[in-house]
Amino acid sequence: MMRTRPLKVALLGCGVVGSEVARIMTTHADDLAARIGAPVELAGVAVRRTGKVREGIDPALVTTDATALVKRGDIDVVVEVIGGIEPARTLITAAFEHGASVVSANKALLAQDGAALHAAAGEHGRDLYYEAAVAGAIPLIRPLRESLAGDKVNRVLGIVNGTTNFILDKMDSTGAGYQEALDEATALGYAEADPTADVEGFDAAAKAAILAGIAFHTRVRLDDVYREGMTEVTAADFRSAKEMGCTIKLLAICERSKDGTSVTARVHPAMIPLSHPLASVRGAYNAVFVESDAAGQLMFYGPGAGGSPTASAVLGDLVAVCRNRLNGTTGPGESAYADLTVSPMGEVVTRYHISLDVADKPGVLAQVATVFAEHGVSIDTVRQQGKDGEASLVVVTHRASDASLSGTVEALRKLDTVRGVASIMRVEGE
Amino acid sequence: MMRTRPLKVALLGCGVVGSEVARIMTTHADDLAARIGAPVELAGVAVRRTGKVREGIDPALVTTDATALVKRGDIDVVVEVIGGIEPARTLITAAFEHGASVVSANKALLAQDGAALHAAAGEHGRDLYYEAAVAGAIPLIRPLRESLAGDKVNRVLGIVNGTTNFILDKMDSTGAGYQEALDEATALGYAEADPTADVEGFDAAAKAAILAGIAFHTRVRLDDVYREGMTEVTAADFRSAKEMGCTIKLLAICERSKDGTSVTARVHPAMIPLSHPLASVRGAYNAVFVESDAAGQLMFYGPGAGGSPTASAVLGDLVAVCRNRLNGTTGPGESAYADLTVSPMGEVVTRYHISLDVADKPGVLAQVATVFAEHGVSIDTVRQQGKDGEASLVVVTHRASDASLSGTVEALRKLDTVRGVASIMRVEGE
Repeated sequence: MMRTRPLKVALLGCGVVGSEVARIMTTHADDLAARIGAPVELAGVAVRRTGKVREGIDPALVTTDATALVKRGDIDVVVEVIGGIEPARTLITAAFEHGASVVSANKALLAQDGAALHAAAGEHGRDLYYEAAVAGAIPLIRPLRESLAGDKVNRVLGIVNGTTNFILDKMDSTGAGYQEALDEATALGYAEADPTADVEGFDAAAKAAILAGIAFHTRVRLDDVYREGMTEVTAADFRSAKEMGCTIKLLAICERSKDGTSVTARVHPAMIPLSHPLASVRGAYNAVFVESDAAGQLMFYGPGAGGSPTASAVLGDLVAVCRNRLNGTTGPGESAYADLTVSPMGEVVTRYHISLDVADKPGVLAQVATVFAEHGVSIDTVRQQGKDGEASLVVVTHRASDASLSGTVEALRKLDTVRGVASIMRVEGE
Repeated sequence: MMRTRPLKVALLGCGVVGSEVARIMTTHADDLAARIGAPVELAGVAVRRTGKVREGIDPALVTTDATALVKRGDIDVVVEVIGGIEPARTLITAAFEHGASVVSANKALLAQDGAALHAAAGEHGRDLYYEAAVAGAIPLIRPLRESLAGDKVNRVLGIVNGTTNFILDKMDSTGAGYQEALDEATALGYAEADPTADVEGFDAAAKAAILAGIAFHTRVRLDDVYREGMTEVTAADFRSAKEMGCTIKLLAICERSKDGTSVTARVHPAMIPLSHPLASVRGAYNAVFVESDAAGQLMFYGPGAGGSPTASAVLGDLVAVCRNRLNGTTGPGESAYADLTVSPMGEVVTRYHISLDVADKPGVLAQVATVFAEHGVSIDTVRQQGKDGEASLVVVTHRASDASLSGTVEALRKLDTVRGVASIMRVEGE
């Protein structure tokens, strides 16, 4: 029953991921054809600069005119692995207009303009798939969108950025400071020359927006995601975490409120107990916990980045989109019917670990405790350490809203006896 | 764009899983309708005995005549959660003949007759989905069949039976023997009154057959799976495992041969290093590792059984099958094009931990080592312990074929100085 006319694929971008997609399309051509029900053919590869020799890719297929490629009219599927907002957005939109379905790995674009792109796909009866945009090779979008389609997801909690996990893991295991660990990550190729997108949490925030939208069947944009990077995490924070039986991870957390009417999405460093499965996620690996009503706790773990793993996800989507194409149908589109409110960070409820530098004299603890009480933040434990007239107070709270905690901290800063707030870290996963 | 005519669902079986499916279909009706694009209606529930009050289910829907229900002709989807070979097989076949798609949680049937059932589904242009048949709520069939459709899977290794994992975890943490741990599992409802299917590995073997078939795009039947239960695992085995920095798990292992032309599937207890993520899978949880060319190592973790988790998987499939139905299409069917040989256990290559009771006199080790050498099995480490004229020898081998190891053990038994072979355990996950 094999159809002989091949499905034509245009590849936009031929970097680390794109070249791997092209390679697998060639070396695994027979398997892909058998699984799809028709051969797939690489019909064109758009790059920024020609001239570079690309092993295994016919030079005649390579072009710098991506626009002409997506508008050719005979392209069945456009694979976009350029990244960034433009020209990717314009090219994807043009692809739909010219009859192609799209497979993308572009988290930034999906997080910012997912709704518009889904609408364009729907208008033209085409597919938009993007498993590779979140957590590399780990199947996550499809399980959330399809496997859990009959369940109610309440929480998604995970490590979705390999670069920062590598750095934090290094700080944890060696006692190194942030800069030292970052330097090692850069030297080993885990961090880019400009690591801002990773270490400031922009990358993880884009993934959180995508995951929250799919998990809760509502629209969550990048701007809705509270974001705090991990550049200020110190070796001292790791020592504090260890004293609590915790480590520190940069987490993406998407939660449904208790009453079910609103959701929150956030990215920030947090202490998690060593007994939590996410605590043992090492190096550049990713792992995501999903909690739902019926399924309970699920975890998905694997390599979150890299050419081959990302290509695996892209090709899985390519097979699905090609099958849909042959069947004259499309897969599930955007599901945003629930239309829930995205609440601000102030409404998030969690626990906090606060280190204060205080004067080493009687009555300080009473003053500090009073401030917490006045803001309705209940204290779980306090630890005092004094030396040479200076002292530190480490307070771990019970669950409180982020707004109450912020109010508490603001008031603490005004106390004469509080010299400074050394660190504030959320405590998750308990 | 909501279609108003509801899709009609017939539920076969209303036990722990079925009643939960019915409950969620009722309580989450609006969500399911929004996600599918049409309402779904419970059109009938087939049970063995009527009379029992089933909370939330209209008694008028309940029937003991499952055959009449699937043959009604207006049923869009049959959900089969009866289990066992018959009458499930006849009912599912009749469902296809009368125009329904099928969602099943029946691992035994799928492992035995999957090919015939897929053929029947294909002949009538209907879907056969069965995510719930393997590892409960954990999305595994869909990720293997769809997310990794562009990749080449080389190995699937996992804990796919919660009952035995509960028992082994208990033995590991308390030092209890098998019977004591089984009694506790039975008392807590983790083991059935007749635990044979679980403890003898039949349940895990059925799942291994299903996983191997999907992972390698070939047919693997239950009879192709080597199976060894865990009833002979002793407290002494756990002590030996601990000395090696290992624990013992009942594993399902499906592997592609190095040259890619054949596969093996097996279920047996094995030692795995404590550092392996599967070692920390506690209680009745399941977890499955998947290794593929491009994606690398992925892990899927979650509750492997129970009414709610299994219902979550069933409902995910129900949503997918209903969407396909509305689109007038079907999802991916059986993919067995690779048509690989399933090799016997003798060809499996792994490491072994062998405990021998030997005479405590000079020359025994030399004799034993000679037997290993004669069979081409290379020894990694040997540990001797002597007491009162008796001694034990613990041998850990390098990688060797199961046939070579069996030959070795047979020859060892014939040595006068070997009083007995106390245990043979495979060592995996290194």
